[in-house]
Amino acid sequence: MAITPISSVEAFKIFVETTRQADGYRDPIGFGICRLDRGQVNPDKILQATFPVVNWKENYGSAAVFLSAADLLRSEGSEVVIDITPAFVEKAKALFSPYWEEAEGEVHKNVQVIKLLDELHQQGKMEGNFSLVVLFEDEKPVTVQGVYLKLYALSLGKAALRSLNLNGAFGLLTNCAWSGNQPIELEWLRQNEIALKMKGEYPKIDFVDKFPRYLQHVIPADNTRILDTAKVRMGAQLASGTTVMPGASYINFNAGTTGVSMVEGRISSSAIVGDGSDVGGGASILGVLSGTNGNPVTIGKNVLLGANSVTGIPLGDGCIVDAGIAVLEGTKFFIPQSELAKIAEVNPDATLDFPQSEGFWVAKGLQLAGLNGLHFRQDSATGRMIVLRSRRDVKLNADLH
Amino acid sequence: MAITPISSVEAFKIFVETTRQADGYRDPIGFGICRLDRGQVNPDKILQATFPVVNWKENYGSAAVFLSAADLLRSEGSEVVIDITPAFVEKAKALFSPYWEEAEGEVHKNVQVIKLLDELHQQGKMEGNFSLVVLFEDEKPVTVQGVYLKLYALSLGKAALRSLNLNGAFGLLTNCAWSGNQPIELEWLRQNEIALKMKGEYPKIDFVDKFPRYLQHVIPADNTRILDTAKVRMGAQLASGTTVMPGASYINFNAGTTGVSMVEGRISSSAIVGDGSDVGGGASILGVLSGTNGNPVTIGKNVLLGANSVTGIPLGDGCIVDAGIAVLEGTKFFIPQSELAKIAEVNPDATLDFPQSEGFWVAKGLQLAGLNGLHFRQDSATGRMIVLRSRRDVKLNADLH
Amino acid sequence: MAITPISSVEAFKIFVETTRQADGYRDPIGFGICRLDRGQVNPDKILQATFPVVNWKENYGSAAVFLSAADLLRSEGSEVVIDITPAFVEKAKALFSPYWEEAEGEVHKNVQVIKLLDELHQQGKMEGNFSLVVLFEDEKPVTVQGVYLKLYALSLGKAALRSLNLNGAFGLLTNCAWSGNQPIELEWLRQNEIALKMKGEYPKIDFVDKFPRYLQHVIPADNTRILDTAKVRMGAQLASGTTVMPGASYINFNAGTTGVSMVEGRISSSAIVGDGSDVGGGASILGVLSGTNGNPVTIGKNVLLGANSVTGIPLGDGCIVDAGIAVLEGTKFFIPQSELAKIAEVNPDATLDFPQSEGFWVAKGLQLAGLNGLHFRQDSATGRMIVLRSRRDVKLNADLH
Repeated sequence: MAITPISSVEAFKIFVETTRQADGYRDPIGFGICRLDRGQVNPDKILQATFPVVNWKENYGSAAVFLSAADLLRSEGSEVVIDITPAFVEKAKALFSPYWEEAEGEVHKNVQVIKLLDELHQQGKMEGNFSLVVLFEDEKPVTVQGVYLKLYALSLGKAALRSLNLNGAFGLLTNCAWSGNQPIELEWLRQNEIALKMKGEYPKIDFVDKFPRYLQHVIPADNTRILDTAKVRMGAQLASGTTVMPGASYINFNAGTTGVSMVEGRISSSAIVGDGSDVGGGASILGVLSGTNGNPVTIGKNVLLGANSVTGIPLGDGCIVDAGIAVLEGTKFFIPQSELAKIAEVNPDATLDFPQSEGFWVAKGLQLAGLNGLHFRQDSATGRMIVLRSRRDVKLNADLH
Repeated sequence: MAITPISSVEAFKIFVETTRQADGYRDPIGFGICRLDRGQVNPDKILQATFPVVNWKENYGSAAVFLSAADLLRSEGSEVVIDITPAFVEKAKALFSPYWEEAEGEVHKNVQVIKLLDELHQQGKMEGNFSLVVLFEDEKPVTVQGVYLKLYALSLGKAALRSLNLNGAFGLLTNCAWSGNQPIELEWLRQNEIALKMKGEYPKIDFVDKFPRYLQHVIPADNTRILDTAKVRMGAQLASGTTVMPGASYINFNAGTTGVSMVEGRISSSAIVGDGSDVGGGASILGVLSGTNGNPVTIGKNVLLGANSVTGIPLGDGCIVDAGIAVLEGTKFFIPQSELAKIAEVNPDATLDFPQSEGFWVAKGLQLAGLNGLHFRQDSATGRMIVLRSRRDVKLNADLH
Repeated sequence: MAITPISSVEAFKIFVETTRQADGYRDPIGFGICRLDRGQVNPDKILQATFPVVNWKENYGSAAVFLSAADLLRSEGSEVVIDITPAFVEKAKALFSPYWEEAEGEVHKNVQVIKLLDELHQQGKMEGNFSLVVLFEDEKPVTVQGVYLKLYALSLGKAALRSLNLNGAFGLLTNCAWSGNQPIELEWLRQNEIALKMKGEYPKIDFVDKFPRYLQHVIPADNTRILDTAKVRMGAQLASGTTVMPGASYINFNAGTTGVSMVEGRISSSAIVGDGSDVGGGASILGVLSGTNGNPVTIGKNVLLGANSVTGIPLGDGCIVDAGIAVLEGTKFFIPQSELAKIAEVNPDATLDFPQSEGFWVAKGLQLAGLNGLHFRQDSATGRMIVLRSRRDVKLNADLH
């Protein structure tokens, strides 16, 4: 059946409106077309999904085209993944007709994707290599492609860190050997080890993991630097102006920065670092899987985590953790009496009601969680862990106080 | 001289038996055929040896074939290395005759190696590129190929960590620039620097070292992850289920894990980490070359080394070292009197006889080496280094107690 | 205009002498010819400059040839960069005539560069790809090529660390994605992202930074090891015998070692480590941009920085910083009275005049800066930060005392 191309922008708008208002139609929260890397031994296994364009709570017109071309106008469930077929491309091409010629550069990126599919199809390189992925609800992912779409949404800054349901993502992904951007099944390496090694053709393996790296999929902002691609996992989010040094740093998936930041330490999965904050060399911010009893750690603005420090509680703005110090939920901290009033000043809403001992207020780390302007240090005369008011500025939100 | 192929499996078995019982014949402890990377400037210098198949205390039939084909039935010394010649291949082929056709996939891997040699020989790509390496005794290695065979035995888990004699290994290996899996003599780079740079052909150098990386030679188990190939040196051993994160981790040769383990810190040469143990972000386990006075450190099962902690003594099962703490041989630890009985419970065979001071038992780190169930921490009120009974389970071996 | 070749070595020497004595002629402090990587989108933007040969306070004859061939005998300013043209090559070739044939291997490297330019020119591959870079004074750099020439001078050990003016270098360099040795404009990746990803041709990005890595440009000494190329930035200087491990180490530009050294920690920009010293796993040496109030840190000879220690003050020879300890400018240290005399012995010129408290002399970290033979540790009974005389040898310079 030949498809009649949509004849004008006006007609396209009517098509979109009609489609979206149709009974049972749902606007997706995210969608895109991805290129697939399949298992060498098990081609049904998807090892990687690469999205040239990710749509997240946007481009509902393109969604209408894709869903229409895929006959998915009345789908069910949280997530739909279908193979890209020649029929899909033909139909999408007809629907995108008014934008076909002008789609290049910064405009009509979803149309550009269909143009490239059309080109690859002519060359016999399309079938079996692409999926359409559509998320209607943020439920736990059910496909590899669905996991990747969420990781992209996080890494592109289209969804907030910790805002997406990634339960079960690890179980869906396959542990692969990665050679450059190419995932390779370990089983394939085993089956071919003798021939590859004898012929001097054994591939260079960069890493073995279920997740790819951030830089395999994401182009950072002009003022963002990542000095070693191994240091940032796909699914991490780096705000513009973030620098990740190559020493002891690492940013896991679903973790990252929300502003300009120097990162020389570890931001574990679920941890978030605020604007103007500095994660010193070797500093560890613990994650929900590594020592925080399930409480994710948010680090406020303008915070300094000293070299080789460890932070297991959320910190407010303007805090300092001295080099080499560990600030954990259960650590007891001693606050000199003269300092408590200064701390209260920059935490007007906090209840600072701690027991006293030997002239100090005594608080556990967990009780200090999220407070502004704290300076954590170890007294070098007594070895006591103390908390003072830091010398860093804390800007309270004038609207709130 | 034409060689008569062995005609049947039965005949092969008789050949093996006869060979092994012959006067002066020795079963090797390890053997294999390796592909060689030779120096670009000094082709006599072996830069790397790649083994498609490693035999270690096994496959004595294949050993008999190889030694017979190499005329090494009555060799002397701990280690023999010979060039693979067409005559060797022809003879091995004849001896392996009953298995020739069926050798593929998981079966008859040594026969597969000979088949590939045969194929490469036909293509004129064999001579000068392969060695047979046979170790009869575990003496200090005398060839590069011998060092590699031992590193393989360790990394493949065929020999226990710290069980092999690697004395002098460093002296045998050449410091090279590595571009992917290709070692390049630094001298060659120097001689060609001007032309390479002027033509834009200077190779990408991944590292400069005497040792290659683990992932250049070893295929990990399906549930083992190494997020950065730079983090594990050839000669390390990683038990199935080990995850090596890319932050501040490193596993040196002759070091590693013996069970499921999360490794975000450093396992220095000679250090071993037990099943269920966790090496926190930036945690350092010292090696015999880096601070332990020559005593190798074994970490027991179910141990937690906190982020940025340092451990220089062996630990038993179920220990915890708090984040940021250094536990060294000479560190003095204070054990509250109420805790000693609890510690004794999970260390029934230990003599816990320490001097007392201010209500504590006082022990040096070295005196606590290997004990189960210890929790090392620094008291945040007094700065004192203390040891408590950890809250982690310790399963004593019922057969022993 | 045909150029008459110089006919003899004697004539060449006269040419050089005449040129250098001419009015207005200046000997450069550094010069060289570099290959350029230009922006894919903005070809006027220089992304990288690769020097096959760097001349630094040497080879004034070659300088005379280059400046003469470039018509720069009377230039002004601190830095001159010109495009290499066919005319330049023809003229330089004529002037280098007496050395033309014999220029290969270790001799006449600048002549070799011209020979290669000549060859590339024949192949149509020269124009637009090369610059002559000449520094007459060590002012702040004004071109990308000038920055690179200084980074080379540092990394090749031709200029001392911290001796060159690099002000504004960051501003001149472009933040790029690096794929192997190839810098790629982020803008180009963005413009081509859809097509590259759809076709499976997205490049492998190794890092995103303004600076390249040391090993992209520099061939280390035979006994120098860098186990991960990501760990050393271009502009770092590594003395022969330096080993950089892959765990938590990093050596930034304008930082490094001046002798044999084991580096398993971070040497921040401006920090220098002396011969025989050991930077333990995860140890941090702070830089002028990271916590030292602008005072660059020099670590003396035979110093041991323990695992996960932090050092923010200069140290003399034979010091030890215990594992996990932070030695900062403001840290208060307690010196037992019996130790002060021993410390004075190895610091004959120092004024050790500290206040007393509870049987200790009390000094701030900054007051101990640069002293020999100190052992920094935390008393495990009291948590007090103490300083003792280390057990390491300190060899005082006999000429001075």
